[in-house]
Amino acid sequence: MAPTHILSAYDEELKYLSRRISEMGGLAEEMCSDALRALINSDTGLAQKVISDDVILDQAEREIQDKAILTIAKRQPMAADLREIVGTLRIAADLERVGDLGKNIAKRVIAVQGSGVPRKLARGLEHLSDLALVQLKEVLDVFANRSAEKAEAIRIRDEEIDAMYTSLFRELLTYMMEDPRNITPCTHLLFCAKNIERIGDHATNIAETIYYMKTGSQPEGDRPKDDSSNTLGAITK
Amino acid sequence: MAPTHILSAYDEELKYLSRRISEMGGLAEEMCSDALRALINSDTGLAQKVISDDVILDQAEREIQDKAILTIAKRQPMAADLREIVGTLRIAADLERVGDLGKNIAKRVIAVQGSGVPRKLARGLEHLSDLALVQLKEVLDVFANRSAEKAEAIRIRDEEIDAMYTSLFRELLTYMMEDPRNITPCTHLLFCAKNIERIGDHATNIAETIYYMKTGSQPEGDRPKDDSSNTLGAITK
Repeated sequence: MAPTHILSAYDEELKYLSRRISEMGGLAEEMCSDALRALINSDTGLAQKVISDDVILDQAEREIQDKAILTIAKRQPMAADLREIVGTLRIAADLERVGDLGKNIAKRVIAVQGSGVPRKLARGLEHLSDLALVQLKEVLDVFANRSAEKAEAIRIRDEEIDAMYTSLFRELLTYMMEDPRNITPCTHLLFCAKNIERIGDHATNIAETIYYMKTGSQPEGDRPKDDSSNTLGAITK
Repeated sequence: MAPTHILSAYDEELKYLSRRISEMGGLAEEMCSDALRALINSDTGLAQKVISDDVILDQAEREIQDKAILTIAKRQPMAADLREIVGTLRIAADLERVGDLGKNIAKRVIAVQGSGVPRKLARGLEHLSDLALVQLKEVLDVFANRSAEKAEAIRIRDEEIDAMYTSLFRELLTYMMEDPRNITPCTHLLFCAKNIERIGDHATNIAETIYYMKTGSQPEGDRPKDDSSNTLGAITK
């Protein structure tokens, strides 16, 4: 009876870690979507909520980390089980950073507030954020099902977000050139857009980690990483 | 004889991981300092070198990760040894991101090139980068000596970098308002400054990890995180 009991307790530990990752993912997702809503509606109360939520997310990462290390020490897992736990550590770290990016957007709500940023730009950001959050949501679903093939598909789709970010970057610069009063708020929006683009990168990281957890190897081929706004030179209106 | 032999082989593995982290740290440092030099001197060749170096850094992270996991699986370490290896994984991840930030600066060299960014702003960036790189260098020294007290000191010092970043942020905005032609290059410099500030954050992360490796707990108190530029509203010239 004893080995079965031990195995089942171990299984419970792995399930617990998985569940905590899903919870972290849910909170990170909510924080980012709230941050963007706060930005668009100048809702400083909601922004404040995102900032407090980040404390919970940070605590969750530490708890998962302590629990994961305790599990490695206690169970001394090999191969796939070990990758599962190490993968959990990596995903928790990515989700913690997603939360940081959400919090950073929330912190910019006050700076952008009342600056008369046109609805069109805000909608651009919203659309970018929708894409990134769908990607994060899908990657969390893939995590729940542990599908290496789907993980690979998500990884490639990150390009779409990068292309939209680059176009938004261009648009924000143009708007800054039209009126110097737009410079400060649009700079904050540029950073918000960059943060959203990085949320997509973290979703891609998580997809890579899931692939690694399942297969023990890294996905083949170069990852479509980084956006092309980096090399964007002078813009003429 | 056998246990001594095994212990010593294990010791060798830990030392190997430590040495590889130091090498990664050295490369990450060099990449960031090269990226900044490339930016200031419009040296696209050097920028290209930084971009290629990032491939080496990414490979180093994966190699350390594989080796660390193999060591956990083979040696089944407990407590301090386990923390040592898990800490190694975390530091490798931070250094990989530092390299990404350096690469991102390098990619902006072409966009900023020939835009007539004044020497004063470039020097501001250089000074910020000097601070961040000293912090990174010191944290790598602390890693070599495993001193929890020094790790704590570095963690607190990150505030200096954040304050300088905020002041540079303000200066760049002012410059953008003076002439719309400055908007595109200065936006890239803003992102470069943000990248440098984040290099400081990663140094702080590493300091926290070293503290954790030594003590098994996270440093006390709230970390002086994030810069105050996030809430910077309209600037009047």
